[in-house]
Amino acid sequence: MGLFTRDIESLDDLFLHQLQDMYYAEKQIIKAMPTMIDSASSEALKDALQTHLRETEQQVQRLEQVFQLQGAQAQGVECPAIDGIIDEAKDVNSEIADKSVLDSALIASAQSVEHYEISRYGTLIAWAQCLGKTDCVPLLRKTLEEEKAADAKLTGLAEQTINRRAA
Amino acid sequence: MGLFTRDIESLDDLFLHQLQDMYYAEKQIIKAMPTMIDSASSEALKDALQTHLRETEQQVQRLEQVFQLQGAQAQGVECPAIDGIIDEAKDVNSEIADKSVLDSALIASAQSVEHYEISRYGTLIAWAQCLGKTDCVPLLRKTLEEEKAADAKLTGLAEQTINRRAA
Repeated sequence: MGLFTRDIESLDDLFLHQLQDMYYAEKQIIKAMPTMIDSASSEALKDALQTHLRETEQQVQRLEQVFQLQGAQAQGVECPAIDGIIDEAKDVNSEIADKSVLDSALIASAQSVEHYEISRYGTLIAWAQCLGKTDCVPLLRKTLEEEKAADAKLTGLAEQTINRRAA
Repeated sequence: MGLFTRDIESLDDLFLHQLQDMYYAEKQIIKAMPTMIDSASSEALKDALQTHLRETEQQVQRLEQVFQLQGAQAQGVECPAIDGIIDEAKDVNSEIADKSVLDSALIASAQSVEHYEISRYGTLIAWAQCLGKTDCVPLLRKTLEEEKAADAKLTGLAEQTINRRAA
């Protein structure tokens, strides 16, 4: 994006920009998750994060398919939002020594990532529908459903065991 | 927070830290919203954002009540997540000249803010319940319901009119 130009001229441009934003975001999430998995003490939490890391790798491939359907090259643009969300997770988690409290904080961090993605994929689907990009919608919807399921799984883990151990 | 100390020793400390994070976040949102309202062209979008700005001011007061219930002074801590989300909104929106496309982008930006808050208030409620802070739960839940309603209202506006105008 140019600093003094207005490069987004249409909803189609905005859709492509947000695809690039999510492509960058998913790759940053893939980089950040192994440290989160290593930091977790609960085996169930480790498993949930590991499963979601594998899903995230597939989500990147799905984004590449959506780029291809646009006749566009898959590339990222810097996304200050995901950078901020990940930085905040690192900051807070580095302040915590107690393993059970850290597990609760890791869930909170992961859920803030999930909610960012739920918001962004929801928007991408709405724009794709409006622009008649019916071939993209199922790919984006599959990822959105995975993000929602990951979020719900983390809520369940937090409420059933992890927050109680931390309290 | 100390740079080389681990200041969060308990779930209670983590709860207070996240309250401080949200106190900072809500105040940053209040600072950012007037520009978003001015940038919007759709009267319905302007109204929705204006209504939510007034709600956000009440949400700050509700957080102050929760601090008071903890016997703690209301204060913020820097929150890289909300700073990043707001910075990204400003970056993207500054790239758009077309008023209808900008309205669609403004809704997307506002929904990424709402989802951050939905995630954080959801976590605060879960921790408050676990810590027996039953007096805080209704205050936090009231705000969570407002965030969800604001998000749903924006989805409705986007799907019914604004995205169609932009397409």
